[in-house]
Amino acid sequence: MSALVGVIMGSRSDWETMSEAVKILEQFNIPHEVEVVSAHRTPGKLFQYAQTAEERGLEVIIAGAGGAAHLPGMAASETVLPVLGVPVQSRALNGMDSLLSIVQMPAGVPVGTLSIGKAGAANAALLAASMLGNKYPEIRKELEAFRRAQTDKVLADPDPRVEIA
Amino acid sequence: MSALVGVIMGSRSDWETMSEAVKILEQFNIPHEVEVVSAHRTPGKLFQYAQTAEERGLEVIIAGAGGAAHLPGMAASETVLPVLGVPVQSRALNGMDSLLSIVQMPAGVPVGTLSIGKAGAANAALLAASMLGNKYPEIRKELEAFRRAQTDKVLADPDPRVEIA
Amino acid sequence: MSALVGVIMGSRSDWETMSEAVKILEQFNIPHEVEVVSAHRTPGKLFQYAQTAEERGLEVIIAGAGGAAHLPGMAASETVLPVLGVPVQSRALNGMDSLLSIVQMPAGVPVGTLSIGKAGAANAALLAASMLGNKYPEIRKELEAFRRAQTDKVLADPDPRVEIA
Amino acid sequence: MSALVGVIMGSRSDWETMSEAVKILEQFNIPHEVEVVSAHRTPGKLFQYAQTAEERGLEVIIAGAGGAAHLPGMAASETVLPVLGVPVQSRALNGMDSLLSIVQMPAGVPVGTLSIGKAGAANAALLAASMLGNKYPEIRKELEAFRRAQTDKVLADPDPRVEIA
Amino acid sequence: MSALVGVIMGSRSDWETMSEAVKILEQFNIPHEVEVVSAHRTPGKLFQYAQTAEERGLEVIIAGAGGAAHLPGMAASETVLPVLGVPVQSRALNGMDSLLSIVQMPAGVPVGTLSIGKAGAANAALLAASMLGNKYPEIRKELEAFRRAQTDKVLADPDPRVEIA
Amino acid sequence: MSALVGVIMGSRSDWETMSEAVKILEQFNIPHEVEVVSAHRTPGKLFQYAQTAEERGLEVIIAGAGGAAHLPGMAASETVLPVLGVPVQSRALNGMDSLLSIVQMPAGVPVGTLSIGKAGAANAALLAASMLGNKYPEIRKELEAFRRAQTDKVLADPDPRVEIA
Amino acid sequence: MSALVGVIMGSRSDWETMSEAVKILEQFNIPHEVEVVSAHRTPGKLFQYAQTAEERGLEVIIAGAGGAAHLPGMAASETVLPVLGVPVQSRALNGMDSLLSIVQMPAGVPVGTLSIGKAGAANAALLAASMLGNKYPEIRKELEAFRRAQTDKVLADPDPRVEIA
Amino acid sequence: MSALVGVIMGSRSDWETMSEAVKILEQFNIPHEVEVVSAHRTPGKLFQYAQTAEERGLEVIIAGAGGAAHLPGMAASETVLPVLGVPVQSRALNGMDSLLSIVQMPAGVPVGTLSIGKAGAANAALLAASMLGNKYPEIRKELEAFRRAQTDKVLADPDPRVEIA
Repeated sequence: MSALVGVIMGSRSDWETMSEAVKILEQFNIPHEVEVVSAHRTPGKLFQYAQTAEERGLEVIIAGAGGAAHLPGMAASETVLPVLGVPVQSRALNGMDSLLSIVQMPAGVPVGTLSIGKAGAANAALLAASMLGNKYPEIRKELEAFRRAQTDKVLADPDPRVEIA
Repeated sequence: MSALVGVIMGSRSDWETMSEAVKILEQFNIPHEVEVVSAHRTPGKLFQYAQTAEERGLEVIIAGAGGAAHLPGMAASETVLPVLGVPVQSRALNGMDSLLSIVQMPAGVPVGTLSIGKAGAANAALLAASMLGNKYPEIRKELEAFRRAQTDKVLADPDPRVEIA
Repeated sequence: MSALVGVIMGSRSDWETMSEAVKILEQFNIPHEVEVVSAHRTPGKLFQYAQTAEERGLEVIIAGAGGAAHLPGMAASETVLPVLGVPVQSRALNGMDSLLSIVQMPAGVPVGTLSIGKAGAANAALLAASMLGNKYPEIRKELEAFRRAQTDKVLADPDPRVEIA
Repeated sequence: MSALVGVIMGSRSDWETMSEAVKILEQFNIPHEVEVVSAHRTPGKLFQYAQTAEERGLEVIIAGAGGAAHLPGMAASETVLPVLGVPVQSRALNGMDSLLSIVQMPAGVPVGTLSIGKAGAANAALLAASMLGNKYPEIRKELEAFRRAQTDKVLADPDPRVEIA
Repeated sequence: MSALVGVIMGSRSDWETMSEAVKILEQFNIPHEVEVVSAHRTPGKLFQYAQTAEERGLEVIIAGAGGAAHLPGMAASETVLPVLGVPVQSRALNGMDSLLSIVQMPAGVPVGTLSIGKAGAANAALLAASMLGNKYPEIRKELEAFRRAQTDKVLADPDPRVEIA
Repeated sequence: MSALVGVIMGSRSDWETMSEAVKILEQFNIPHEVEVVSAHRTPGKLFQYAQTAEERGLEVIIAGAGGAAHLPGMAASETVLPVLGVPVQSRALNGMDSLLSIVQMPAGVPVGTLSIGKAGAANAALLAASMLGNKYPEIRKELEAFRRAQTDKVLADPDPRVEIA
Repeated sequence: MSALVGVIMGSRSDWETMSEAVKILEQFNIPHEVEVVSAHRTPGKLFQYAQTAEERGLEVIIAGAGGAAHLPGMAASETVLPVLGVPVQSRALNGMDSLLSIVQMPAGVPVGTLSIGKAGAANAALLAASMLGNKYPEIRKELEAFRRAQTDKVLADPDPRVEIA
Repeated sequence: MSALVGVIMGSRSDWETMSEAVKILEQFNIPHEVEVVSAHRTPGKLFQYAQTAEERGLEVIIAGAGGAAHLPGMAASETVLPVLGVPVQSRALNGMDSLLSIVQMPAGVPVGTLSIGKAGAANAALLAASMLGNKYPEIRKELEAFRRAQTDKVLADPDPRVEIA
């Protein structure tokens, strides 16, 4: 089956963060592809990637970037697919620059933005699963199982004073 | 046809912002419902709303709130539907509190966050259309037309020194 | 005697912070209970916890959480007991997100917010003791002794150039 | 009956904010007193106020201040009563300075901090009612009624598109 | 003579700010062109604009944008000409989002960033004049005259208590 | 000779920062005294310290504190001597809370605030020397020598690529 | 008598803020001079001003500036007199840029920084009076009278609910 | 050939950052000079440096500084050459103070500001090359080659899951 989710990131160094998204996609058996696409260093590739995404069968794009993070917004400007943005934690400003560069899109071209760093990457995949679940019942089921397991895990060990065996 | 998108907000005063989302949904002929649901003042209603959203046929929830904006995150905690959050501009901190309260969700329960204020509300509806477009071709077409018109409008009047007739 | 103070936190990883609250409660002999309750992963448990808190004899709830920290505010929305919030220091934004998510509650549902991190956890317990001291003279006495000892300790070694033996 | 709650503020100009606290106290029939006490301009009065608060029968102090807002913290340093702090919105920094000056107390002397501005002032009174409710059943009842009315009001008019008659 | 400086902006509403740059260019007789080019709504035009800028004779690009301001950085990614960025003051965050989105470019693709708002727009034109002055002596002379006049104007009326006639 | 400068700090842990002030005072042979005085844990001592400072011969007070840093402002409220404030770098917020708590004093009671951390502590002593230099020529001379040496040191090794022998 | 305090500001538009300093100096009969000196537009004048300040009899320099506020720090770099800095409230960033540009001086060249805006300007004059009071008893007396009056005014009307006649 | 680019920095400790600019200048064979010039400790040298820069043949000045970073702005105030500013990452505030002190210049004297830290230093050199490229074709060629190589490097290894050999 061709990829439903495209995971792109602005630099190889973003992989440490974005691999959290891919782990979830793998766990949910959601077909996906992973690529480094830099808005600033490979703008041509970015445009081609976004413009062909729909015809190649993608249904969601997850884009992670840090600093003046233009990747998610520029991908969104070239496709009608939903684009989810992950603000990678930056060195000096801890990802506040990444967050504002991604989330503060003007009216007309949205990016659904997740939290800064690894939690945001995992959540981008979970939100993609959530969207796809409306169309693909088996993905919805995976998500339901994930959410139940997550809840059960917290319920199983309610006392933080006791180490988990 | 039953509503595909549920638009909720924490207070009647958020309507000035959130009506921008509803305008887009109406323009795109996307069936929707609109309700005030307060995380803090009507938590029971919020839970019921989110827990029954899927069975009532909703496929996306758009939630707007300001300040310690818990509505989007708590809705997301009670449904596997995608939840989009709109940070309403707050009085003292200009929506920075709303933004961080919505976007900084922990791994496991995502909220796709849009920009602060009216632009974010419009974009939440556009992102919802984007998601639904994967399943409903007519919504995809509406979105494509909207995007083309938006582009054409900028291209039509490229010189800012000349007033638009 | 049944617990007067309930200490809850959003995740086991918050225990390192919240244990500072429990140390004070133990030192003051204030009956208490400690539990992990996640607003996002176990919302049902949170509601049940908060709704039954008063009838179970609790008089104060101390809730610690980080990031989009919804636990204190959502606990407060389901009980008329006083709720104290501790912003746990978050990875990317150093707890500024936790602080704003907890303190910026809308009119109608208050959370008494303490400082970010361990100092805030200790202070939540001291503020709980302060409140309870109006009703339980022995707790007031414990607090007075604590405050006196704290003052005496600073007065005893006024010269920072001399190491304390 | 002597005052249970003391409402103090750093300047007459804070009254516009702090009157929201007094409205709630009046509505709940909680005996209270109101005074301008400036940490910086009348430090002697502040000390006397805080030192005698307990013996005069006060059970809670609500202190509002803006900018380098030292009033709540210094009141707390001179009493074992619970002190609640309201960050008044400041001119240049919108109350972010007030918030940090009040909430970031060191371990040992807590101030329960509410949100910036009028909402925080109202919430300080509600939190005081919450604390006092453990000891005074009639105050608990007032609070329960307030909360129910607040919930009912949101439930009564769920559609923001319809003006309230 | 063909334009040496291209002034672009993301939206017609940025003209109020960016006209300050054009005033300086006119005053200095620097050939220039002015156009609305939106990174998000007309990405194709932006790419074409930047890719053909050098061959059309431009030597500097001044780009103004607000919010998630991607225009300057994306222009810079498609040309080896110097790109200067002007953060337009945004509604909610006062231009802090615009500033960080423009200035925090990753190593490899620079944008010379000016101050937020009108002062930044004027300064972008002055910096362009400064650059061009190395090659075009008459522009250097205009800049020197501007700077001298500016200095003289401050020296002429040193007493702020006296109104300027 | 009795002390001219009093150096106080809120906690023994501030000594690592404040010792930079004392080094300068020692180098300049300015008589001084050093003490831990906590606004929150020893308010009585703080008041006595500030109220007797002038009669004991002090001419400047340097006060360092972190977090909700009330020490400098409260010292200033009880003396007409000049008070200089040093924001100690705090754990969570890097001293931004300390800075705002110290510098944002209301009209009427000033604190001359220096930069965050060790540089600020050294500068507080240099500013004290600057003030005292108007009255004590030998202190002015020490300061002039310090400033000359500081300048000469930078001038002596202008090339950062060459290690200093 | 020649001026003891020099009040400088970066622009005529700063006079609205800095006049608050001059009011205090006039009230205290402290000889002073007032001038617009721009670090960026008249750097030569700034250097001359600061270098000759001591020999002209000045004992304190008060410098107000906004944005990238370099005036106080550059004045301090050219004199051994104490320099007090007033962050003028800036348009976009509300004076946060002015504050950080003034207060964050490196070790070696201090600027005693006051609060943002008019309160800071008044406080700069009060701090100058405080410093001069060590040498000029009549200035100390003026300051003592001012402080007493200020305290008495707060004490005279303690009830904010009653309008002052 | 005499230097075209002058690289200055406020302190030897800035060399770790600013060496990234020099690496690029060396790689591009752009004649340059490197010097420590402190705005606060050697203001006279700074003035002389900036005032003679043009006659000595410099065409661009790159200035790096941290904290209250006055070096770039003061250099710009004494020359009509383009000045590029690099905000060095500061200890307490992570370079946010450096950034605002450099970028927020008033209208009339611009500083082209790059990103915080090493990326900004490299980008300052790339922007200088960009400017010089309009006059010196061989520098334009170097820049084009650099940009191509940079793009090719990203394109060569698109899969972040595969380690680069």
